Amino acid sequence: MKTKTTRLEIETTEHTQMVEITEQVRRAVAKSGVRDGVCLVFVPHTTAAVTINENADPDVVRDITMELGKIVPWEDGYRHREGNAAAHLKCSLVGASETVIIENGAPLLGTWQGIWFCEFDGPRRRKALVKVISED
Amino acid sequence: MKTKTTRLEIETTEHTQMVEITEQVRRAVAKSGVRDGVCLVFVPHTTAAVTINENADPDVVRDITMELGKIVPWEDGYRHREGNAAAHLKCSLVGASETVIIENGAPLLGTWQGIWFCEFDGPRRRKALVKVISED
Amino acid sequence: MKTKTTRLEIETTEHTQMVEITEQVRRAVAKSGVRDGVCLVFVPHTTAAVTINENADPDVVRDITMELGKIVPWEDGYRHREGNAAAHLKCSLVGASETVIIENGAPLLGTWQGIWFCEFDGPRRRKALVKVISED
Repeated sequence: MKTKTTRLEIETTEHTQMVEITEQVRRAVAKSGVRDGVCLVFVPHTTAAVTINENADPDVVRDITMELGKIVPWEDGYRHREGNAAAHLKCSLVGASETVIIENGAPLLGTWQGIWFCEFDGPRRRKALVKVISED
Repeated sequence: MKTKTTRLEIETTEHTQMVEITEQVRRAVAKSGVRDGVCLVFVPHTTAAVTINENADPDVVRDITMELGKIVPWEDGYRHREGNAAAHLKCSLVGASETVIIENGAPLLGTWQGIWFCEFDGPRRRKALVKVISED
Repeated sequence: MKTKTTRLEIETTEHTQMVEITEQVRRAVAKSGVRDGVCLVFVPHTTAAVTINENADPDVVRDITMELGKIVPWEDGYRHREGNAAAHLKCSLVGASETVIIENGAPLLGTWQGIWFCEFDGPRRRKALVKVISED
């Protein structure tokens, strides 16, 4: 079964921010009508990323972005003129995509897992692409 | 061809530990009967991850966990009350999934590559999910 | 539709280097004849990786490799005898694979995105595997 790519629109409001998109991904999977398969979430930007992490305590993503900022300092002798080289590196460390299993028409996530869009150089209007691969 | 998700059970014995699961993944692929396609290994936890790395010299994974512990210190002014924020960040850096090619009914890995479950806040009973996407 | 895995040959010339392989991936997808699906790029090495990042300003990948070298120092009390433990860790941080969407017979990438092979212990002769999963 062929499926259409879903474009999610995400508006970030902070310079560095994790925005949960689990529900949007869930809706895209439900809309596809696919019962079994996998779902790819792909971020078409080079200073943003996608990750899966805890969505119960908001301090978790706050700690993740804080510590990532310490590991990859914003200024550190970079040559890239736009001044956002740190955001590019964070993008490669966290990654441009995540793939999840689809079972019974929904993403198969662990109890504490949520899907997070990671903004590393905002605020901006962003996109995430959701592609379902069906086994039906 | 529709395939069932295989649930691997992993019992970790250390706080931070890499456990090789290559053989379990290989068995899950063989059991699926699929000759060609891809195989997704997904970790449904937020303080664990999966990676592909050398399985010849055990010092490699020992060095990886040691250095990762230096890069992401266990205590560093985190707010998350459970005290395991570092494990959550490691999870996002290493990643919740890996996808490998299936050729001739087996994962197509490089000579030195093994698939490793990464425990960052053990010891615990953990799971890894193996999902085969068939082209047959 | 069943597709063959494409083997890309990459010859790196530096110890640490990012080599763009977007065009080779694009050609592999075109040659497969697949119009819609996904494409997995997999690196079968344990001291190399693949990532997606900016391909407009060459300073971006220069900054990424430079900063990654600061975050994961080449010497840091590692035990692995071959002396390239840092390269192994970089491999797990950046990751052995990337998956992109195929739409209209081509990888669906953002405006600034390129696919990069990451050499962390060169120069060497390397490979990257491209596997297309078709929905056609």
